[in-house]
Amino acid sequence: MSADDETSATERLVARRKRLLGPAYRLFYDEPVHLVRGEGVFLYDSAGRRYLDAYNNVASVGHCHPRVVEAIARQAGILNTHTRYLHETVLDLAERLLATFPAGIGNVMFTCTGSEANDLALRIARTTTGGSGFIATETAYHGVTSALVDLSPSLGLPPAQDSPVRLVPPPRPAGDATGAVFARHVATAFDDMKKSGIRPAGLIVDTIFSSDGVLPDPAGFLKPVVDAVHAAGALFIADEVQAGFGRCGQMWGFARHGIVPDLVTMGKPMGNGHPVAAVAARPDLLAEFGARSRYFNTFGGNPVSAAAALAVLDVIAAEGLVENAGRTGAYLMTRLRALQASCPLIAEIRGAGLFIGVELRDGGLAGSPAPKQAGRIVNLLRDNGVLISASGREANVLKIRPPLVFSTEHADLLVETLDQALQTIAAG
Amino acid sequence: MSADDETSATERLVARRKRLLGPAYRLFYDEPVHLVRGEGVFLYDSAGRRYLDAYNNVASVGHCHPRVVEAIARQAGILNTHTRYLHETVLDLAERLLATFPAGIGNVMFTCTGSEANDLALRIARTTTGGSGFIATETAYHGVTSALVDLSPSLGLPPAQDSPVRLVPPPRPAGDATGAVFARHVATAFDDMKKSGIRPAGLIVDTIFSSDGVLPDPAGFLKPVVDAVHAAGALFIADEVQAGFGRCGQMWGFARHGIVPDLVTMGKPMGNGHPVAAVAARPDLLAEFGARSRYFNTFGGNPVSAAAALAVLDVIAAEGLVENAGRTGAYLMTRLRALQASCPLIAEIRGAGLFIGVELRDGGLAGSPAPKQAGRIVNLLRDNGVLISASGREANVLKIRPPLVFSTEHADLLVETLDQALQTIAAG
Repeated sequence: MSADDETSATERLVARRKRLLGPAYRLFYDEPVHLVRGEGVFLYDSAGRRYLDAYNNVASVGHCHPRVVEAIARQAGILNTHTRYLHETVLDLAERLLATFPAGIGNVMFTCTGSEANDLALRIARTTTGGSGFIATETAYHGVTSALVDLSPSLGLPPAQDSPVRLVPPPRPAGDATGAVFARHVATAFDDMKKSGIRPAGLIVDTIFSSDGVLPDPAGFLKPVVDAVHAAGALFIADEVQAGFGRCGQMWGFARHGIVPDLVTMGKPMGNGHPVAAVAARPDLLAEFGARSRYFNTFGGNPVSAAAALAVLDVIAAEGLVENAGRTGAYLMTRLRALQASCPLIAEIRGAGLFIGVELRDGGLAGSPAPKQAGRIVNLLRDNGVLISASGREANVLKIRPPLVFSTEHADLLVETLDQALQTIAAG
Repeated sequence: MSADDETSATERLVARRKRLLGPAYRLFYDEPVHLVRGEGVFLYDSAGRRYLDAYNNVASVGHCHPRVVEAIARQAGILNTHTRYLHETVLDLAERLLATFPAGIGNVMFTCTGSEANDLALRIARTTTGGSGFIATETAYHGVTSALVDLSPSLGLPPAQDSPVRLVPPPRPAGDATGAVFARHVATAFDDMKKSGIRPAGLIVDTIFSSDGVLPDPAGFLKPVVDAVHAAGALFIADEVQAGFGRCGQMWGFARHGIVPDLVTMGKPMGNGHPVAAVAARPDLLAEFGARSRYFNTFGGNPVSAAAALAVLDVIAAEGLVENAGRTGAYLMTRLRALQASCPLIAEIRGAGLFIGVELRDGGLAGSPAPKQAGRIVNLLRDNGVLISASGREANVLKIRPPLVFSTEHADLLVETLDQALQTIAAG
């Protein structure tokens, strides 16, 4: 197929998509990518072109990992029912998952998506605190249900009238003061809520603050925040949909902060693409929730989803992926920092494990955000076979979030391609 | 394994489940069933006992249908990404789905569960009407998200304070007047809403009224209801999660009523157990929604989910399952009506296709509901190898909802086992 034919094939696909799915769907990149195959850290388009995937945090153990595919195929051929019958696989999964949590988190409930998990966490927090007020950060993303849209200001939608939600500034790196400043914002927002007659229910944070621009440091800064939340009579909800399952060099993002959340939600990489998600919780909270409410999610915790999630845990352990995320992430950060030395556009590099943000500004950290350059770089990388994206309030933070099977060779390829793009940008 | 060993194995599993998952989970039957295998219309427990599945509307083309299993396994091994890249399978699925709808329904958006689909339909209705008020029936079930709990009174939870939801009595069969009476209830509820300063957004109905006790007749009764909804400036949301995909002898439950909804939601049988669901809509509604809001559901419409749903559509067509649902459903209704002649406990039999409700009352339709007898029958059937359940406000309606591959032989086995159970009950 010639380049022209390819372009018109892509255009036809884009037009067909718009006609069938409507205009609420968005595509990545100026030139959308038409993918047909994935394997490990690589994706392939319809022209056979290979892309290094340095963005997708769902296929976390690698695209189409044979062990996960086999688990899904096997269980789908044996039985797929629901949790109103007894089945052992969902219990094996629950046991394995709970073993990864600190004492205090003792139960788990299954859903199909991170949105459903976060929405359920809100329901549990409302029921057990008697409150309705929630806090999130100003550029947060927590999901797409009606109740989560107000807690996801990064979607850019106006908050509902009389919304019992308060937004606080994200924890901008401020050294040792980071946690105290963030905790003060949270305490003030809960006070404001109470003045309006709204009883606090919870704070929900993505523990890597992904859509806020990737804010991991200093590790431990969430400790005073947990205290502020509890002082207000509210619950701390750790949204681990992005940070969890080894991504940040530890099994859970909150673990970097040495805290024990009241509720933990998880999703995206949990089934390596298969729709499975969960809420882990303090048993006393679920005892109260369960006494007032039953919960049934038709597909949640079904034997196939449970088998997929168990296989993911197996692969994470067998291939040492938590350790690899820490090791390869550190290597990648070192190489990116070397790049920064010769590139004034890179204002800051922040990261934990294989979740890295590269903040672009004109004139250092005090300079103005550089979203246009970020957009150009993202598209240049795509054209040169590397997939990343951008995030943050000003969309000026390159978001690097590859599958956990990323090796130093893959990191080298990413950094070299990024180096070229930066040089292209610098050359105008 | 002896019967005693089996009982204690079940008890251990129940205890383990409670310890890991907490108390919000419920099991079916006095003696929970521990399932290990499924094939066609049959399920098998850990002791090798066979159960005729006359209840599960998810594995609608039969448990572990090889064509669906193969589609999932194949695509899971090739690529599983999301809708921010181009992929053809989700478009093929959208095209095939939309071809089953009347003119007027022209776009489809994908989610993972019926709850997510209904929640998205609420969002679209709120955005496009500018209203926030919704109506559902008094015993409705529409899902588990925060926004849907108030529209799911069958869950038995108290409505949220200041909820903009109004509940109306379900459309009890009243011959030709059924629709007019129901439409009047709906119009009155919208009027009441407006008096409280709440702008109407929509009516959501399960088009077979499953949790209301299965209320299909007379076909066409929803026509005046659509008019009442539109007169109030609101949208008609057809929740096809239970009634859709051939269940009622037509592809969609609303088609029996000769209406065109504004929004249609679907889920459960869509992937035969794989978590996939969708909202189909008037394109002008999605144009407005999309102009104000982007929508991204990480797993929604991924290539594997799309392949599963396409395979289900293939099987429905190849095996003539819509027609079979109509034919076998009619046969089953005839046999159940014959049973009714000699059984005073059966007050009414209602159904469409393979969605049948058998209402039990002491002393005919005017008599008192018989939920205890319904419970005993459900458990007796389970003990004799047939799975059904009960529904309705008084839990006195036997709910019969087998996979669509049900044959007359399966219907005979169900009716004979039910006959025995009714005789056991009659004998005291």
